[in-house]
Order: sequence, then structure tokens, then C-alpha cells
Amino acid sequence: MNKPIDKDALNVREITTGPLPASTKVYTAPKADPSLRVPHRLIALHPTAEEPPVPVYDTSGPYSDPDVAIDLDAGLPRPRTAWVKARGHVVQYEGRDIKPEDNGNATGKYLAREFPVKHRPLKGDRTGPVTQYEYAKAGIITSEMIYVAERENLGRQAMLDGAQDRVEAGESFGAEIPAFVTPEFVRDEIARGRAIIPANINHAELEPQIIGRNFLVKINANIGNSAVASSIEEEVEKMVWATRWGADNVMDLSTGRNIHNTREWIIRNSPVPIGTVPIYQALEKVNGVAEDLTWEVYRDTLIEQAEQGVDYFTIHAGVRLAYIHLTANRVCGIVSRGGSIMAKWMLSHHKESFLYTHFDEICDIMRDYDVSFSLGDGLRPGAVADANDRAQFAELETLGELTQVAWAKGCQVMIEGPGHVPMHKIKVNMDKQLRECGEAPFYTLGPLTTDIAPGYDHITSGIGAAMIGWFGTSMLCYVTPKEHLGLPDRDDVKVGVITYKLAAHAADLAKGHPAAQLRDDALSRARFEFRWEDQFNLSLDPETARDYHDQTLPKEAHKTAHFCSMCGPKFCSMEITREVREYADGLSDNEKKALGLSAEEGMKEMSERFKAEGGEIYLETED
Amino acid sequence: MNKPIDKDALNVREITTGPLPASTKVYTAPKADPSLRVPHRLIALHPTAEEPPVPVYDTSGPYSDPDVAIDLDAGLPRPRTAWVKARGHVVQYEGRDIKPEDNGNATGKYLAREFPVKHRPLKGDRTGPVTQYEYAKAGIITSEMIYVAERENLGRQAMLDGAQDRVEAGESFGAEIPAFVTPEFVRDEIARGRAIIPANINHAELEPQIIGRNFLVKINANIGNSAVASSIEEEVEKMVWATRWGADNVMDLSTGRNIHNTREWIIRNSPVPIGTVPIYQALEKVNGVAEDLTWEVYRDTLIEQAEQGVDYFTIHAGVRLAYIHLTANRVCGIVSRGGSIMAKWMLSHHKESFLYTHFDEICDIMRDYDVSFSLGDGLRPGAVADANDRAQFAELETLGELTQVAWAKGCQVMIEGPGHVPMHKIKVNMDKQLRECGEAPFYTLGPLTTDIAPGYDHITSGIGAAMIGWFGTSMLCYVTPKEHLGLPDRDDVKVGVITYKLAAHAADLAKGHPAAQLRDDALSRARFEFRWEDQFNLSLDPETARDYHDQTLPKEAHKTAHFCSMCGPKFCSMEITREVREYADGLSDNEKKALGLSAEEGMKEMSERFKAEGGEIYLETED
Repeated sequence: MNKPIDKDALNVREITTGPLPASTKVYTAPKADPSLRVPHRLIALHPTAEEPPVPVYDTSGPYSDPDVAIDLDAGLPRPRTAWVKARGHVVQYEGRDIKPEDNGNATGKYLAREFPVKHRPLKGDRTGPVTQYEYAKAGIITSEMIYVAERENLGRQAMLDGAQDRVEAGESFGAEIPAFVTPEFVRDEIARGRAIIPANINHAELEPQIIGRNFLVKINANIGNSAVASSIEEEVEKMVWATRWGADNVMDLSTGRNIHNTREWIIRNSPVPIGTVPIYQALEKVNGVAEDLTWEVYRDTLIEQAEQGVDYFTIHAGVRLAYIHLTANRVCGIVSRGGSIMAKWMLSHHKESFLYTHFDEICDIMRDYDVSFSLGDGLRPGAVADANDRAQFAELETLGELTQVAWAKGCQVMIEGPGHVPMHKIKVNMDKQLRECGEAPFYTLGPLTTDIAPGYDHITSGIGAAMIGWFGTSMLCYVTPKEHLGLPDRDDVKVGVITYKLAAHAADLAKGHPAAQLRDDALSRARFEFRWEDQFNLSLDPETARDYHDQTLPKEAHKTAHFCSMCGPKFCSMEITREVREYADGLSDNEKKALGLSAEEGMKEMSERFKAEGGEIYLETED
Repeated sequence: MNKPIDKDALNVREITTGPLPASTKVYTAPKADPSLRVPHRLIALHPTAEEPPVPVYDTSGPYSDPDVAIDLDAGLPRPRTAWVKARGHVVQYEGRDIKPEDNGNATGKYLAREFPVKHRPLKGDRTGPVTQYEYAKAGIITSEMIYVAERENLGRQAMLDGAQDRVEAGESFGAEIPAFVTPEFVRDEIARGRAIIPANINHAELEPQIIGRNFLVKINANIGNSAVASSIEEEVEKMVWATRWGADNVMDLSTGRNIHNTREWIIRNSPVPIGTVPIYQALEKVNGVAEDLTWEVYRDTLIEQAEQGVDYFTIHAGVRLAYIHLTANRVCGIVSRGGSIMAKWMLSHHKESFLYTHFDEICDIMRDYDVSFSLGDGLRPGAVADANDRAQFAELETLGELTQVAWAKGCQVMIEGPGHVPMHKIKVNMDKQLRECGEAPFYTLGPLTTDIAPGYDHITSGIGAAMIGWFGTSMLCYVTPKEHLGLPDRDDVKVGVITYKLAAHAADLAKGHPAAQLRDDALSRARFEFRWEDQFNLSLDPETARDYHDQTLPKEAHKTAHFCSMCGPKFCSMEITREVREYADGLSDNEKKALGLSAEEGMKEMSERFKAEGGEIYLETED
């Protein structure tokens, strides 16, 4: 905390750039607006595969594009300013002055370097729609809507083979996943409140992204210094690092000094939506004394962060005075930081939460900048023993009430969810959230399905995350291996992101997203055909896959070997199956027909030829 | 394979012994037979907790008991020989001579050292019951049944607080989990074929364990050298290592030379059931040429391994000639080694599998030694694209038919299951298995819920494992991070075991096993009360939990700190909640009552007192 910030520190660690293995960044131009450039990643396969490159969703922004020169001091390009201005109903103004308390009164060598460029903020002028929700309700398709439609389709054309069949083969629990995502579908989903595009009009660097039950499941990675460890430059790189591995969103949960300047560096360099919990900074401004929090301090913080371009705010407005005593007999009480801070404020003042009483005014601010609500679950369970209790569900009902208020004010809304929930209590959460909150997108932390594995809570929660993602959660907040134990480092962030990426993908597969299985199938074909390089390159973490393979079979020749060290050459079922198939391929058309239609006949033929050709499964080992 | 075995190699690496942190091995004596000593692990808590030690299921055998001197050359004590002999219907005989081909014709320095002690094998004399199934059907409760009943209860007494309520609060999908496990319940479940106790009468070192839907979910760890890496001494330690972290069963999947001697070392030193896939060794005996396999070679191998004490055999008798062509259009064909070997044999001979045609004789051998069947799924899907296809389900139907045959012959049976299955297709597998196989225990590999994360397949499969365990699978075969890539090392085995242990536990919680949540609750209380040492000690992997904590807060003082590095002291919700509660505890009984019954009134009181006492959440950081 009190460590001096080295002004040249940003140069100490290189920001991670460059493409992933065998990957090319491509940009497609949507038909509805060919001026937009929507990024995808294409993974090239070995020529023997005779398959086109596999397109995958790309969250990594310009950092993985070798044609873009990254300059952190300049920030990323800001195309969205033109989009927003073209739509109108906004004014550009001087913005709020940065105050010493915005950075925890840090001065001199303790003050982090300011971001060098000052952008004058935009805000709605209240003459017409500003938010994506308002535009959608007005029947207007925005550039952001066109962009996310193109992005969700992974660049594919409408006629993906059997897309509708794939949707129908899935189980989406009443979601309405389309075979092909059109801008009109996006608009309609946003207008119905079932999806949001977190896109503050001041986050001009953003590559827009949609969060909703009928779209690909998204994941969020938390970064942020804490009072005990880490620094600004690490946080910027953490954002780049997390998005490189697939984080769709990043929450900056920084506390302590230099919050404002840290956040500015992150947003100006972030291609993904940035979320925050404004009460954290507000609490810093009153020196950590929860009772000293006021609506005015909080309001000022909202405006400060909205002007910077924060895309969504976690606001624990559902923690009401009347609910606190419901946590008294819990095993783990209140485990949300925001929830506990507000509980303390309410108890000490014996007043209803100012987040609740001033909710209308909060909406007005959110609307002016199109900051999306992430209505926080301050009373979420922190132990499986506390799951689905009255405190949790009372708050959820209030969040449903607030969702209606926010929509009436023109705001985009998503709802945060638990927490620690055993498997048999997960679906109840999802169903109740859909019912209480009018199908507003659910954004859950895990949930962790058991409490007994600290050190492995990315997995205890990955199980719950995959399940609730399948049931209908739109975004999964990652958990790293360090959860409950310490602050995640670079490796932990990566493991957390990959774990949640695979959980989200497992959910997409189960829901029947039409393009989801393309990557699984491409990887499985590569596995069956012993294209080791393709297996590595198609995986979520090519580096780790290659490294694990090379630990036992390091030689380059092993990359083309028809076996791996698990079974060795003699027992490789894939190799045996391949041999059987090769043999079968040698049959005439009639013989093949016989094989399919009359197994007895075909098999007999196969048996004879197989022997004649000296069928043999024993392969010599190298040593 | 071709590496010489160092005869002193067993001493090169120490076998891991000694208790886990804060843990004591205790043995309880079941009422039904006080001569039995059933092991449990007690985890002691910090004195301030004022809680009794937490009992947990203990798979680690004598290795974690400091009072037992481990001597690998002598093997573990053999109490079960007396149990088996006392029941009768067995003869002790000289047993089959070890042949050179049993060890792959290894000689001289290439031949692994023989286990020093020769035990004459037992087998049924066909005068009466031998298997647990036969005894159960005859209404006889064996020592093994008494032992596992005591073990499943974790040493608790019948009257665990609210045990029946806990069962009813779970969702077990039609299982019939009892509030308390009695020997009679065990007998009844075995007689109904719904549970097995894998316990070869020649594995006298075994600590018996039960596998069935109405008992705690078990896990299996695979070990075994392959043609490419690892050695005997590593395999023995891998078994000890895997059971230390919670493996209930171990499969020895060794191939290549020295299979017989390796297995002897493992069984003689194993407190857990050992499973094998006999076709692997049979194939070695015919130099890896699948077509040269014969019933006689296979039969000889079954007897060889049954005499050694292997507790269950994977037998792929459900892969029939008529099903092979059903795999022709799969993405990944046949991925089971045993399945592909038999497919090749059948095609080349154009004959039905000898495993199927000789199934009756196989049953007779299994019965003589009480080797349990693990009916293999040779046509399991190896890619999500191939899940639940006709090939897979045709085989499952045949496994159901064979289950009836094996039961009629007096054998214990479990059924192996997939593989790669997306989430929405998992429950169909479980339901069909229960229906086709008369509720015989299901033993599944994962399933993996997506194919795109090699390097993380312990997690892609841990998700599926937790779910299918909840739905009714009795045992989960672990998957390590190296799956599809390489041979797991010591660390991978541990990660695989812990991942599956947490998945199995998540399933137990969801099913409503009455004692399962005790450990979660104890750990959550420790978390809430900042008993860091207790949190580490109660976790599945205390070493990793402590290590992760210490990476950011290494000092001893931090072990009692009321915060961690994640949030730092100022934002610790648990600490804030604790303060709020401490304040509330200071209220009079009437005030407390008011708090519960009339929140308004109680809260007002609390608010005033809180202020008067200078309620304050800001704690100074150390630096």
C-alpha cells in the first residue's frame, strides 16, 4: 500500500502481445454496416487436415494483432466516440476535476503517474435515447448491436450446416437461442431486458460484447490491487493477460491509494468492458469508516467513474435494513464486501440503505453514461450451509423490484448471483432469478459446490459455473485457485480464466449454441489423426498442452507420432481404430455398403483382407 | 521397458508415510464385531474452536499411522485371510507357477525383483458361498460388510443431529440413502446387486470398502507404467501417494515387461482394492499381436491375476462383432484400448469376441476368488460428437444382459461408463445404465464435458463427474491434467485425486449423505472465525492451501490475522460481519429477541450501541 510507485514501472514488465500459436487475427465487416471491423481469431490447421482454419471468439483486442503497435501511454484507438456522437443526444463537457481523495490523497512519489491523455467526457443531454436499452426500445439498431451480432456468429454465414438441428439437440431450459444471430435479434433481446451490451459511452476503446441467455456464455476476471499486494503496472498487464486467455469482461476491484489513476490506465487500454464496485472507492474517500459514507460521496464517485468510462457498476442496493438480521444465524454471515459495508452503515445509522433510497438518482446517472447495472448480491451465501436461505432470496426479490425501476429509467441491468451452493440447490437459484428479475441476465460467482477444497476453488466453483451457465446464467465470474487464501498472481489469473472458459464452453455445448461444437470436433479430429500440433493449437491453453506433452515425449519426431506416452505405441486405441478404418477404406463401394447395411457380410470381407495385408498392431518403440 | 531395473531402486525414493497435518488415525470397533479395527482420520481443531475433532473417511491405510512400521518387502498385515478361512468353502493350494511371459520374458538385470514372500492362494472349493454377493444372497453378514458399514458412518453414532432431515433435504434421484448405515443394510444392498465390496479373497491386506449408489461416492486412480516411461518403485509409491490423498481404489494399468512382479509389489502393499484390465497382460503374452490372442491365454491371465489378489477386472465383454461397424462414422472411433484390441481380434477372425462367448467360464473364475466384474465400456465415446450414439448404447444393453449372467453365477458386478459427454447428455447415461443393468453400480470415467481443454481435462471431466456422481454413479475414475497428453507424474496424480475427491464430495452433499456436510460446515466456521490453521487442516489438500496463503502472507502472525491478502484488512466482509455480531451479542435477551422478532426495534438498539462503542471497520495495515 504505502510503497512508492516507480514512475517508469510500466516499462519494467512488458505487456504481453502477439498472436497465439497458429492464430491469425481477422476482422470481418458486417453486412449491416461494412465500416465496422469485428475481430475473430482463426486457428490454422496442418495442411494434411484439409480443413479450413477454425474461427474462435476473440477477446484479446489489438494486443494479439501483430499489425498494431501498442502504446500504453496513448491508449487504444477510440472508434466508439464517433458512433456515439453520430447518434446524438450527448454533450461533451469538461468533466469533474480529479481530487486528491480520488487517489487516496497520495502525493509525490506515492502518487501513481497520471494517464498522459485527457479525454473530455460525454454524457446524455436528456433529449433522446443514450443507452443501448433505450435505443432498442425505440426500435433503433446501434453499431454496437450490429457488432455483437457479427461477433456471436464467429464470422460464420447463416447457413452453417445443421445449425437449427444443433439448437434443437441442445437443452436450453426455455431459452430461445437462434440458429443465426441477427442485429434485429440482438435489438429485440436488449429491448426485452434479456441481454445487455455493457458499453459506457466514454469507453470509446471498447470492442462491444453482449451478455444474455441467448448468446454465448461470457466470463469475467477480477483484477485489482489490494491493501497488501500488487501495483498499477501489474494490474494493466493482468487485464491484458486475462483477456488474452479469454476473459470477456474485467472487474477492477482495486482499493487503497491510486485507484483513480490505476483505473484510467486500465480503461484507456482495455478492449473489454470494465466493471467496478464504486462503494470501495467511496469507502476510501471516508478513510474506511463505513458510518461516514454518505450519498453525496457515493454519488460523486459514480460520476467520477462514469466519466472515466466504467461499463458496469456493482451496486448492492438490494441489501435492505430489514434483511440484516436474517443473516444472524448463518455459518458465514455476510461475505460480500459491499454487503457488509452497507450492513454496517445501516446498523450504525439505523437507516435504510442510501443505495436503495437514492436508487432513482443512481439510475439517472447510469443512464446518462450508459453504465450498466450489475445489481450486487450483498447477502449471497458464503458457505454451502447458508445457500438459498431467506436472506439471500429476500435480497433477490428486491433486486427484481429494482430491475423494473432501472428499466423504467432506461438503464441496462444484470443481476449478480451466488456464491456457495451445493449442486442440488443451483437450479432453484436460476429459476427464481429469471422469475423475479424478468429474465434480466444473471451474472454468478461460481457457485462453489463444496467448501472443503481451498486451493482448488476454481474447480469447486467451475462445476457450479458450468451447471448454472447451462441452466441460463449469462456471465460467470471466475474464481482462481487462490480464492479464500490469497491474491491471485499471473499464473492464477490464467488458470482461473481457462477454467471458466471451459465451463462457459461446456454450457454453450449443452445449451445447443450452433457454432460451439465446431471447435470440439476440430480438436477431436486432430486427436484421432495424431495431428499433435493442431491439438495444442486448438486448445484453450496451447502452451500448457504442449508443455505437458513434451514432458514425457520432448522430441520433435514425437509431434507426428501415432501415439502418446499415456498408452505407448502398442496400446493406442486410436491407432488401432485408424488401422481398422484404413483397412475398411480399401473395400469396394459394394463392400462398404455391405459393411453398413449388412455387418456380417462386410465384416467377413474385412477380416480376410485384414489378414492378407498382415494386420499388425504392434509398433516398435523407439528405444 | 528396456531399462534395467535397479534392485535397490525401491529404497531410492522413500515411500510417503506419516499423518496429514493435525490428523490422527483412529480405529473404531463395530458393535457387530468388536474385533474389527476400522480406520478413520480425526482432524483436530484449534482449542478456541471448542469443537470436537472432525472425522473424515480415511483411504490412506497404515502408511499414515505413525505406530505402524512400514516394510515393503514384507507387505502389509493380512487380517482377511483369517476372515475368509473362518467362513470356509475355500481351499489353499500351490497356485500357478510364474512363467517367463508373465513378466514379458524379462531376464537378468531387466527382470524386476520378485516380491520376497510367497503366499499360497485361496480359491473357492465350490461347496458353498465365496463371494460377498453369495453371502449376501444367503442372508449372511460378513466381516467385510460390518467393516464397511462402520466406515461409511465415519465412526458416528446413529443419532447424528438431524440425519434423516439431511437425507430428505438432498436430491438423490430415487436412491435410498439411509440416515445410518447398518451391516444389514449393506448386506441387503449387495444382495440386490446395488453395491459391491471389491475384495478378492487373496487380497488379505485390504481395508474393505463399498461401492454403491446409497453409499459415499468413491474415486479410482489409475497408475501403471507404460511402454514409454516410469518404473516399478514409482508405481508402488504412486499407489501410496494416491491413497494418501483420497483414492478409494487404484487400477494398475501397467503394460510391457515386469507386469506380474510390479503388480505383486503393489497388491501386497495396498490397503485399497486393486483393479486391472487383464487383456493388457494377455496381449503382452502374444507379443502385442491382437489376432494371436486366444481364450486360453486370456483364461490363464485371469487365474494368474486372481491368485495374486486383484479385486476387480475390467472385461470388455460387451464389445460384440455386430457393433463395430457402428463406430465407423464416429469422430474418434474406438478409444478404449481393450475395446480396440478386441475389435481388431474380432475383425481379423470374423468371430464373436471370446470374452462374450466364454463369459460363463469367466464368471466361474471370478466367483472362485471373488473378483468383481467391472464390465468395460469398450465403445465409450472419445469425443462429445460421439456421445450417446448407437454403438455406445448397444454395448450398454449387452452389459445389462451380462450383468444378469454374472449375478446368476454369484459374482459381484459394476458397469463402466463414459467418457466424453456434453452436460445435457449425462443424465440419459445414468438413467439408461440403472435401467439396463438392474441398478448395478456405475463406474464412470469423467465424463469430459468438452474436448477443447487438453491440459485441464481433470476439470472438464470433474464437472461431468460431479454431476453424474450426483445422478447416481457410485465410483468416479479420475482424470489427471495430463490426460490425452502424457503420463501423469506424482503432482498430476495428486491433482487428479483431489479434483475427483471434491467432485465426489460435491455429489455426496447434493445427494444428501447425512454426514457429508459436517466437514464443509467445520471449514466454513473456521473461515468465519479466522482460524487459518483449521482451514488448511480441514481442506482436502492442506499443503497447497497453506502454501497459497503463505505466498502473499508468509509471516506466522498472519496465521491469526483477521483478514487475508485477497481483500486486505479494511474490506474483509467476514471481519465486518464478526464485528456486527459481536455488537449484537452484547444485547440483552430481550433485545436479541427484538432483533429476531422485530427487526426494526432490535436494529435501532444495535445502531445506538454500535455508535457508542465507536464501531469502526478501518484496521491499520502493517505497512
